[in-house]
Amino acid sequence: MGLLDTIQGPQDLAALTAEQLPELAAEIRDFLVAAVSRTGGHLGPNLGVVELTIGLHRVFDSPRDRIVFDTGHQSYVHKLLTGRQDFSRLREAGGLSGYPSRAESEHDVVENSHASTSLSWADGLAKAFELRGEVDRRVVAVIGDGALTGGMAWEALNNIAAANRPVIVVVNDNERSYAPTIGGMASHLATLRTTREYEKLLDWGKQSLKRGGVPGRLAYETLHGMKRGIKDIVAPQGLFEDLGLKYVGPVDGHDTEAVEHALRRARSFGGPVIVHVITQKGRGYQPALADDADHFHAVGVIDPETGEAQATSGSSWTSVFSDEMVQIAATRRDVVGITAAMRIPVGLEAFAQAHPERVFDVGIAEQHAVTSAAGMAAGGLHPVVAVYATFLNRAFDQLLLDVALHAAGVTFVLDRAGVTGPDGPSHHGMWDLAMCRLVPGLRLAAPRDAQTLREELGEAVAVADAPTVVRYSKGKVPAAIPALARTGHADVLEGERWATGDDVLLVAVGSLVPRALEVARRLRAHGVGVTVVDPRWVVPVDEALVQLARTHRHVAVLEDGCEVGGLGWALAAALRERHDATPVHGFALPQRFLDVGDRESLLDAAGLAPQDVARALVEAVAQEAGQGPGQAGEPGPAGEPDGVAPRAEEFPSR
Amino acid sequence: MGLLDTIQGPQDLAALTAEQLPELAAEIRDFLVAAVSRTGGHLGPNLGVVELTIGLHRVFDSPRDRIVFDTGHQSYVHKLLTGRQDFSRLREAGGLSGYPSRAESEHDVVENSHASTSLSWADGLAKAFELRGEVDRRVVAVIGDGALTGGMAWEALNNIAAANRPVIVVVNDNERSYAPTIGGMASHLATLRTTREYEKLLDWGKQSLKRGGVPGRLAYETLHGMKRGIKDIVAPQGLFEDLGLKYVGPVDGHDTEAVEHALRRARSFGGPVIVHVITQKGRGYQPALADDADHFHAVGVIDPETGEAQATSGSSWTSVFSDEMVQIAATRRDVVGITAAMRIPVGLEAFAQAHPERVFDVGIAEQHAVTSAAGMAAGGLHPVVAVYATFLNRAFDQLLLDVALHAAGVTFVLDRAGVTGPDGPSHHGMWDLAMCRLVPGLRLAAPRDAQTLREELGEAVAVADAPTVVRYSKGKVPAAIPALARTGHADVLEGERWATGDDVLLVAVGSLVPRALEVARRLRAHGVGVTVVDPRWVVPVDEALVQLARTHRHVAVLEDGCEVGGLGWALAAALRERHDATPVHGFALPQRFLDVGDRESLLDAAGLAPQDVARALVEAVAQEAGQGPGQAGEPGPAGEPDGVAPRAEEFPSR
Repeated sequence: MGLLDTIQGPQDLAALTAEQLPELAAEIRDFLVAAVSRTGGHLGPNLGVVELTIGLHRVFDSPRDRIVFDTGHQSYVHKLLTGRQDFSRLREAGGLSGYPSRAESEHDVVENSHASTSLSWADGLAKAFELRGEVDRRVVAVIGDGALTGGMAWEALNNIAAANRPVIVVVNDNERSYAPTIGGMASHLATLRTTREYEKLLDWGKQSLKRGGVPGRLAYETLHGMKRGIKDIVAPQGLFEDLGLKYVGPVDGHDTEAVEHALRRARSFGGPVIVHVITQKGRGYQPALADDADHFHAVGVIDPETGEAQATSGSSWTSVFSDEMVQIAATRRDVVGITAAMRIPVGLEAFAQAHPERVFDVGIAEQHAVTSAAGMAAGGLHPVVAVYATFLNRAFDQLLLDVALHAAGVTFVLDRAGVTGPDGPSHHGMWDLAMCRLVPGLRLAAPRDAQTLREELGEAVAVADAPTVVRYSKGKVPAAIPALARTGHADVLEGERWATGDDVLLVAVGSLVPRALEVARRLRAHGVGVTVVDPRWVVPVDEALVQLARTHRHVAVLEDGCEVGGLGWALAAALRERHDATPVHGFALPQRFLDVGDRESLLDAAGLAPQDVARALVEAVAQEAGQGPGQAGEPGPAGEPDGVAPRAEEFPSR
Repeated sequence: MGLLDTIQGPQDLAALTAEQLPELAAEIRDFLVAAVSRTGGHLGPNLGVVELTIGLHRVFDSPRDRIVFDTGHQSYVHKLLTGRQDFSRLREAGGLSGYPSRAESEHDVVENSHASTSLSWADGLAKAFELRGEVDRRVVAVIGDGALTGGMAWEALNNIAAANRPVIVVVNDNERSYAPTIGGMASHLATLRTTREYEKLLDWGKQSLKRGGVPGRLAYETLHGMKRGIKDIVAPQGLFEDLGLKYVGPVDGHDTEAVEHALRRARSFGGPVIVHVITQKGRGYQPALADDADHFHAVGVIDPETGEAQATSGSSWTSVFSDEMVQIAATRRDVVGITAAMRIPVGLEAFAQAHPERVFDVGIAEQHAVTSAAGMAAGGLHPVVAVYATFLNRAFDQLLLDVALHAAGVTFVLDRAGVTGPDGPSHHGMWDLAMCRLVPGLRLAAPRDAQTLREELGEAVAVADAPTVVRYSKGKVPAAIPALARTGHADVLEGERWATGDDVLLVAVGSLVPRALEVARRLRAHGVGVTVVDPRWVVPVDEALVQLARTHRHVAVLEDGCEVGGLGWALAAALRERHDATPVHGFALPQRFLDVGDRESLLDAAGLAPQDVARALVEAVAQEAGQGPGQAGEPGPAGEPDGVAPRAEEFPSR
């Protein structure tokens, strides 16, 4: 029985001696490598915070003290130390979440896995504790150096520094976000790391100042008046202290004693303080350390010995985009790429290899990514901002008022749109379609296969006076899905009577086209005539799509975005404006946060299983036929037959 | 003829001698006071940047060099110096914009008047110029100390500092945003301002270090190795330089020679540099200087001698909110207020006077405002975040994933929702209704008068497990509008046959209720039976509202938000789900950026003039009657009679 087995909760850590802690740390690392290589997950970040997390739970009294993890993927060790050691179903429905989860434990606070939020949460918690007179409660935020490049972290630091509440900001500095951290802030942290000799200078500095005559005294008094410690004179730790924050560090984050000592100092200080902890992503696991790209930031199922991934086959949407960007960049010298700290995951690495001066990593800073893109467009370039769909939410205002209001030709490529799967509610790209539709002038395409991705990306970067968006899902791109015909922007995929109208027009957004084809197969088996159309450009609603809808008896829209404000609503509005009462049946994501789970299961659960869509449509067609034409528009009880699919009841709230 | 009359463009400034510049500055101040007191506008900020703007246009070659003004309300002097001296219709339709406007001048770059964007624009422009080989073009961003509290400014600084492009960041430091600037950053700027004696220390410092023996040499070499100037040792200007930015200043922003000298130094440096300019908001105008609240940040029509405002009468929505918050705060000790640097304009001043420890100004930092509110809710408080509707766009992600995902009881009070008027496209609160509707669990109310504002605010702060929003427009609150009856959450305002149904159900959101009552009057004059209902809670769609809709022959929705994703769309979707074909006619803001203009005219132009709404509805009712029941649902040419109102054609894009 190892030490880890004896830890049921943080209180059990206190019983360990200082000498046992490295042993516990080693056990935790073995556990993490074994467990995460079976399930996939965020391995590198958690290997880096083993000693730090042990120290946090020895020094602070969670949950009375609150420990907030920024981008909660670094909370695995925290889970192990707070009674959660069954990692067998990590990131699966019913298993442990890959992030903190309040449903799992009272020790968890923040479930949002977008970066840079922890300091704002900490400021809020500390304000609440102060006002409620709970003055002994400490708030600890653990934030990576990468997350400090996000603007809201700075907004929070600015507030934390101005007050005197006991907020402990632990900067977990591994020199990386996903990839190496960029920018002035990173340089400053590097400076702090490389000037650890400064302690030796303190005594000399103090004496030197006192000896310095009038200027020396003036300097001393100036510094004293600013309530800053004497050691600031030679220690270049200005940035945090200039904001008004005490600074402890740098601390070797893998030295359990040093970590604990620093945290105790910070705890006893009683005001806002930065603890600068130097850690190594992937610590103790050779395959991770050897991986220059991201130190095994997040892995799939891997061989625990070698770190090699399970074989996969087929191209991903991302790789098709990556290849096509290289092609576009070769002929369009004005095209540049922008990433918010995710050059490899979003597929800009090949472009960057070919043209390093034309791909910009701005840090975890979506707002800056978008507005600097507007600036680049104003300067004569055409930027392609490649970002996960969920992270564009961070820059709605900038998309609206910097890009669209200025009619800037900027292309956004949204990866991981729709349902993503194991990363849970804050990683699903549910809102991009509806949010983008609010932006005047914006055009959004959702490709269905590799060929349409290439084609639509080409059309997008050709637009010089408006924002364009190309969005696709996580995972493999399906085999080519040919079109029967094109009308307006839309591709008709199936349907002999598409031009003159049929029972059902099935409109499928992007990666839902295969599901729509399966729905069509089932409808035909029930004798229902069907046309399947890929609108290609989903925003704005294409006039040709509206005309198709008007010639069919029913319209069904399948989309992997939220139903509220989605294509179904928009197409229905377009029909209403034309006083056309063709019924529109929407199949989309419900108005709630989607849980962890695999993509296909979550789509099925949202009512998008082909058999469920087909059943609802067969019933709708049959019901209309039974009623006879002209009655469908009548309100009253006849509008709600027992036989109708139950999905309307799932969405009580919008 | 004064000097100002001789300035047709920046080139004319070069002809002036150094001695003439203070005279020009005085003329400009006289002009500004005279002009802005007639029209209203941003007076205080522009009085503060007269010498700075003269210096910018003497040192830089606009438009080849690009000058970007953050929150463009400080661009009046820039307008005067670039050929725009007719201020007679400032901020009116057809007159000069109150912000930079690319339609007005090639010297203008950024029209977005939300804060903190200028540095990102500058970074983008500089990247474009570098890639295009236009290496002699400089980019200047003029940003206030207040705007530096916004996170995206930090994201940009982090990027600007890491490169070597000629970006000149002019920090216009007047110690205020709207109100005095808060936070660690402000303290740091204050430190810089108050340690101007440091130049005297430089020689001593250098000698002292060289004399210091081994430790001294080590310190010297450490600093040298960091490529920082020797003067950093005693000058506490660490923050900017720690990020890697050269720093020039502080400079007296009202000394034309000093300003010009500093800007020339910055220009010749060739890399990124901060120029710290100290200015005085309201400079040279005694009434502004004497106003402690905001130094005449933005004024209405005033007496130019005394600064006294034209008399106005009646209560504003803001003042009703302000009073009610004091009432609520008296009994609800857990309720706190949060503002993003606008305590007085959003109506939190009275609350702050009564309970200073319970109102928090977080700086121009909407993201932090929202996420720290989630943290406060997690700590047992109920925060009320009071913000202009347009600025909530800045925190969509935080509203969604920090507040709503965590089921935090946070109330948002959105002032200046809908059409605001003279501040132009980036100040209209057009998107809040549609954006908030995307947030699962969120509830939004739009009061119609003072009584419903008080009532709905009370209902909002009673919700402990979800975000709530109360939104209202700029301006005066109308006289009480009583209800006939309440059904569900909705108030029926007029309509004898409301319970059993009538020709038209008029649904009016918040401040559009008076327009709806006028529409109803006109409908009745045409013999059309009408029910007028105020849904009170606009998000989610109330079941009682849906039932009202189902008993009427037509539904019309009047809302001062964008049509896309608005209540009209949502109510139509609710009816579709119930297989109810009652036609829904939407009257809302079109899918484009609204221009400057007064609120009522802009609403009229958007198709919301009562006579236009009434005409469209009379025609719709008559047309249906002519067709006879049962035909309304038929598609085809009959669905588009010539007689229908033309407004559907205004909205081609969504």
